[in-house]
Amino acid sequence: MNAAIRAVVRTALVNNMNVIGVMHGYEGLVNGEFRPMGARDVGGILQRGGTVLLTSRSKRFMEPSGQREAIRKMNEAGMDALIVIGGEGSMNGANALAQQGVKVIGIPGSIDNDIWGTNIAIGTDTAMNTIMDAVDKLRDTASSHQRAFLIETMGRNSGYLAVMAGIICGAEIVLIPETPVDQQEIAASVEDAYRRGKTHAIIINAEGSGIRTTDLATMIDEMDLGFKTRMTILGHIQRGGSPTAYDRLLASRMGVKAVEALVEGTHGVMTGLKGKGIDFIPLADVISNKRKVNMEYYHMVKVLAR
Amino acid sequence: MNAAIRAVVRTALVNNMNVIGVMHGYEGLVNGEFRPMGARDVGGILQRGGTVLLTSRSKRFMEPSGQREAIRKMNEAGMDALIVIGGEGSMNGANALAQQGVKVIGIPGSIDNDIWGTNIAIGTDTAMNTIMDAVDKLRDTASSHQRAFLIETMGRNSGYLAVMAGIICGAEIVLIPETPVDQQEIAASVEDAYRRGKTHAIIINAEGSGIRTTDLATMIDEMDLGFKTRMTILGHIQRGGSPTAYDRLLASRMGVKAVEALVEGTHGVMTGLKGKGIDFIPLADVISNKRKVNMEYYHMVKVLAR
Amino acid sequence: MNAAIRAVVRTALVNNMNVIGVMHGYEGLVNGEFRPMGARDVGGILQRGGTVLLTSRSKRFMEPSGQREAIRKMNEAGMDALIVIGGEGSMNGANALAQQGVKVIGIPGSIDNDIWGTNIAIGTDTAMNTIMDAVDKLRDTASSHQRAFLIETMGRNSGYLAVMAGIICGAEIVLIPETPVDQQEIAASVEDAYRRGKTHAIIINAEGSGIRTTDLATMIDEMDLGFKTRMTILGHIQRGGSPTAYDRLLASRMGVKAVEALVEGTHGVMTGLKGKGIDFIPLADVISNKRKVNMEYYHMVKVLAR
Amino acid sequence: MNAAIRAVVRTALVNNMNVIGVMHGYEGLVNGEFRPMGARDVGGILQRGGTVLLTSRSKRFMEPSGQREAIRKMNEAGMDALIVIGGEGSMNGANALAQQGVKVIGIPGSIDNDIWGTNIAIGTDTAMNTIMDAVDKLRDTASSHQRAFLIETMGRNSGYLAVMAGIICGAEIVLIPETPVDQQEIAASVEDAYRRGKTHAIIINAEGSGIRTTDLATMIDEMDLGFKTRMTILGHIQRGGSPTAYDRLLASRMGVKAVEALVEGTHGVMTGLKGKGIDFIPLADVISNKRKVNMEYYHMVKVLAR
Repeated sequence: MNAAIRAVVRTALVNNMNVIGVMHGYEGLVNGEFRPMGARDVGGILQRGGTVLLTSRSKRFMEPSGQREAIRKMNEAGMDALIVIGGEGSMNGANALAQQGVKVIGIPGSIDNDIWGTNIAIGTDTAMNTIMDAVDKLRDTASSHQRAFLIETMGRNSGYLAVMAGIICGAEIVLIPETPVDQQEIAASVEDAYRRGKTHAIIINAEGSGIRTTDLATMIDEMDLGFKTRMTILGHIQRGGSPTAYDRLLASRMGVKAVEALVEGTHGVMTGLKGKGIDFIPLADVISNKRKVNMEYYHMVKVLAR
Repeated sequence: MNAAIRAVVRTALVNNMNVIGVMHGYEGLVNGEFRPMGARDVGGILQRGGTVLLTSRSKRFMEPSGQREAIRKMNEAGMDALIVIGGEGSMNGANALAQQGVKVIGIPGSIDNDIWGTNIAIGTDTAMNTIMDAVDKLRDTASSHQRAFLIETMGRNSGYLAVMAGIICGAEIVLIPETPVDQQEIAASVEDAYRRGKTHAIIINAEGSGIRTTDLATMIDEMDLGFKTRMTILGHIQRGGSPTAYDRLLASRMGVKAVEALVEGTHGVMTGLKGKGIDFIPLADVISNKRKVNMEYYHMVKVLAR
Repeated sequence: MNAAIRAVVRTALVNNMNVIGVMHGYEGLVNGEFRPMGARDVGGILQRGGTVLLTSRSKRFMEPSGQREAIRKMNEAGMDALIVIGGEGSMNGANALAQQGVKVIGIPGSIDNDIWGTNIAIGTDTAMNTIMDAVDKLRDTASSHQRAFLIETMGRNSGYLAVMAGIICGAEIVLIPETPVDQQEIAASVEDAYRRGKTHAIIINAEGSGIRTTDLATMIDEMDLGFKTRMTILGHIQRGGSPTAYDRLLASRMGVKAVEALVEGTHGVMTGLKGKGIDFIPLADVISNKRKVNMEYYHMVKVLAR
Repeated sequence: MNAAIRAVVRTALVNNMNVIGVMHGYEGLVNGEFRPMGARDVGGILQRGGTVLLTSRSKRFMEPSGQREAIRKMNEAGMDALIVIGGEGSMNGANALAQQGVKVIGIPGSIDNDIWGTNIAIGTDTAMNTIMDAVDKLRDTASSHQRAFLIETMGRNSGYLAVMAGIICGAEIVLIPETPVDQQEIAASVEDAYRRGKTHAIIINAEGSGIRTTDLATMIDEMDLGFKTRMTILGHIQRGGSPTAYDRLLASRMGVKAVEALVEGTHGVMTGLKGKGIDFIPLADVISNKRKVNMEYYHMVKVLAR
C-alpha cells in the first residue's frame, strides 16, 4: 500500500494540494492522529511491506457518533477530502462518510481479492507470489515417497487466492468457500493423482472452505490413498513481503487517479481496474455487491492438474 | 513459457488430441525435431525459467523453401495444427505459415512487451520484477554520498520495461527509444533531485534509447552535478528466473484458450489479453502494427519522482 | 545436495574414475537402480532444490540381508566405493556398510543440523533463510493491533533451526526439544514484550518441543496477554527451495574432499566442517554421538529480543 | 550491518551501558552527529539492507587534527568506548584512535571479504547470494545458441567473491586481481566449454582483474570461439538487499562479542570468525596484513566446471 500512499502524496503536491496523513486508519481519524506529508516523507517506502501509516480496527468509527467525531476532526484540520486505502470494511466506512457529505475516494487493497468493482485489488499479486514460492518449495522435495501436501491459504469468504494458486502451482484440488466439496471428491482427486503416477498431490485449502486443514490431513491419512500427508499453514506471511512490480504499478496508478478524481470534482467512488484502465465505481455499488470467484478458473485447475 | 506449454499439452489431452512438441523453435520445425508430449512430460516445469522445448533462431525458416520444408515435416508427422509461443519474429513466422494454409495459433511471449495486440505478453512481469529487485538493492545502499545510479534495461525498440520500472522504482528520468531526450534534460532532472535533497538519483536507460550507458555515466560525471555515478547493466538476467504468479497465470490462460480456439475451428490468430479476458487477434494485424509505449506512463514517472 | 553430487562426479572424472549414480538412496542400492554419470549429467542442477538422484526410505536395507544384497549389487556393478549424502539415518547405513568392508564416505546433509561431527550440514543454511523470509514477512504486517506470531519450524530432536531463527528474526522466546519451558515462562516473555511496547511478539516452536503449535496458540489466547495470536506452520517448505550460496559452497567443498579421501585411501569417515577446513570424522564416532544445541545461543535470543 | 548495530545496542543495554549512535561514520564522529540509542530504536531493522546509521567518507578524519577533534567530541559526549563496523579503511581509523588511547573494538564488514583476521566479514554472504541469483537467471536462458556470459563482480583488490561465485555458479574461468590470466588461457577455457558440448560458458570478472569487462566482451567476440557474448555488470546491487541468515547471525554474534570484550576490559581489537568461535584480533595486525584468496578454491573452479 505504500506505493499508493506515495502516489497520492506526490500527485497531490504537483497539484498544489496540502497532504495530511492519517495514522492507524479510521481509529486515527476519530482521534485526529494526523501528520503533514511532504515529498520526502514517502521516499524509500516503495519496497516495504505493510503501510507506513499503520492500520487499526476501530469500534468507535462503526458508530454514527464516531463518524461525526471523525468528520469534526477532519474539519478542524482543514481537510477537504479523504482518500481511503483498504478492504471491504474500509469501503463501507468510506461510503458512510460519503453519505454524510465527505468527499471521499476509495482505493481497493485486499489480500484475497474479495472487493467488488475492480479486477484485482492491491496486495493480491504479492500474496499470490508468496503462496506460489511456498508451493514451489514443497514440490522440490519430490521423492519416491508419495506425498500429499495440504496448504492452507487466506480467503475467509473468497476462494480467489486458492483457485489461482491451484492453476499456477498445479494443485489436484482446491477447497473454497464458494463451493462445497465432499470427502469422496477429495479422495477421488488424490487417488487419481496417485494412479496417474504423480509423486505428490497438492491440495489447496482456503481458510474459509469449511474444512479445517488439520481435519483434512487426518481425513486423508485415514483414507490411506497411497500418499502420506504433510501440512503447511501459511498464515500471515501472505500479508507481508516487499510488494511485487504488479502491485506497485497498480497502486501507483490508482493513487494518481484518486487525486485526479478529486481535482476533477469526482468523489464517492472507488478506483477500479477495468481492462487496461482505471475506472471510478460508486462506493454504494462496491459495498452492495459481492464478488464471486469465476468458476471457469475453478474448472481450469482440474484440467491443468491432469 | 513453460506454463503455456503445460497448459497447451494438458488441455489438448483433455480434448483427446495428440500433442507433439517441437524442439528449438522454427529451426526444429524445419528439421523435424519432434517429440510426443504426455501429461507427465510437462510435470514439474512450472517453476523453471526458460523453456523445456528450447529456442533457436532459424535462417532457413525465413526463406520460402524453409517454410515449405517445415510444412512437409508437419504433414509427415501428422500435425494438424501448430501453436507458436514467442515474440514478434515468431508471430511473423506464424503468419507466414497461416498464409500457406497451416492452422496456427500464436501466443505472445516477450520480455519487453513489444507485441501489438495484447495488453501484456508472457515474460514481461517476470522481467519487471527482476529489474525492480535490482533497483531496490541499489536504493538500500543509501549513504551521505550523493549517488546517481544508472541502470540499463532491455528494450531495443520498446521503452515499456524502462518506463514501468521508472514508475515502480522511483526513477528521476527514463531514457527510451520512443522519445529522444537531450543532455540538458538529463542534467536538469539529476540536478533537481540533488536540490530537492534526494540522496540518490536513479536513471533508467533502455538499451535502445540511443545513448550508451557507459557514455551516459561519463557525461554525468563530467557535468559534476553533485552525484557520483554508479552503473549497473542487467543484461540477460532479465530473461531468466522462475516466472512470477502473474506470468504463470497469463501463460496458463493463453495456453488453454489457444487449444479451445483450435477445437472451435479458430486459427490464424494470436491470443491477446484484453481487459479481463483473452481475445483472438488476427496474426496479420499483429504483425502490421507497432506497439507504442503509453506516454501517460512516461509522464507519471516525473510526477512520482518528485 | 545437487551441488555435492556435481562436485563428486566432476572431481571423480578428473581423477579418471567412473561414476555411477544410485537412484532412490539405499532402496535403490538394494535394487541396483544405477545409472552412469558423466560431466553433462550434472550440468544445470546447481540451482535446483531436492536431489536429482531422488530419495527413499528403505526397510529392506535396515536388515542385514538387505545390506548383503546391496553389497552384492555394488560388486556386480563394479563399484569400488560408495559416497553417501544424507542425515543421521544415512550415516548409520554408511557405517553398517563400512563395517562389512565397503569403502564408504559420508557427506552430512540435514535441514535441522542434527548431525554430530560437522559444524553445519548441507541444507541447514537454505532452511534457515526460508524461515527468516517467512518471519520477515510476518513482521511487515505490523499494526496497532498487538499480535503474537507463532511459527513452527522443523526440528524433531534438535532446536538448532529454532534457536538460530530466534537470534536472526528477533523472537521473544524459542521452544526446543532440548529444554522444557513451562507455561509461566512463555507467558512472562510475551507479557514482557507487550510491556516494553513491542507491537508484536514472535514465538518460534520447534516441532519436537513437546508443545503442539495449535495448543500453544490456544494457551496464549486464553491467557489474554494483550496480543492476539496468529499461527504459521512452515512444514516441508523448509526442505525445498534453490540452495543458498553457503550451501552450494559447503556441498561443493565436501564433494571434492570426499573424492580426494578415496584417492588417498581414506574411508569409513564423514566429511565435517571444522573451522575453515573440511576434516574426516570416523563414521563410528558420528553415529555414537548426539549433537546438542549450544545453549549460549539459546540465551542470546533473550538478550537480543530486549 | 543493522544486525550488528542491534546486537551491540541491546547487549550493551543488558550490561547497563548507555549507547550513543554515531551517524555517517567517522565524518559524523568529527562533527559530533550523535544520537542516543534505546532498545526500540533498533527494532524492525534486521531485514533492511544498508545501515540505519548511514555511512560517509571523511577526509578530515584522515588528518591527525580530525582525529583529535573526534576524540574531543567523544569526550564531550561522555563516550568511554567506540565500536566501529566497517571495512579496511574503518579498521585503519579504528587503529589510529586506539593508538591515541581510545578504547575501540572493530567489527569487520566487507562485501568482497578483503579484511585480514576473520574467515569472513559481514556482508559477503549476502553479496554472494546476489551474484548467484543473477548467474542462475543467466543459465535459465539456455538455448541452442551457444552463449558466453560475462559477469562483472565487485572485488577491486580481492578475488574472493569472483572465485567463490565461480565454484557455486559453475564458471568456466574466473579473472581476479591476484592472478593475471592471459588472453590465450581465457580463449582456451571458452573453447573447451564449447567442445565439451556446453550450451553456455560463464566467465566471472572481478572489477579489479585488470581487464575491463567491455574489453573482454570485444576480445571474445573477435576470437570467434563459437559463443556469442552477453554482458552483465552487477555494480552496486551487490551492496544492497536484505541480509541473509548467515550475515545476520554473524553480525549478531560479533555485536554481542564486541560488547562483551568491552565489559571484560579488552579493546584495540577486531572481532574475527575463527572456526566456530569469535576471536579478538589486534587491530594493528589486521591493518598490517593483506588477505589473499585461497588458490585452492581458484583451482576448484576449473575442476568443477568440467
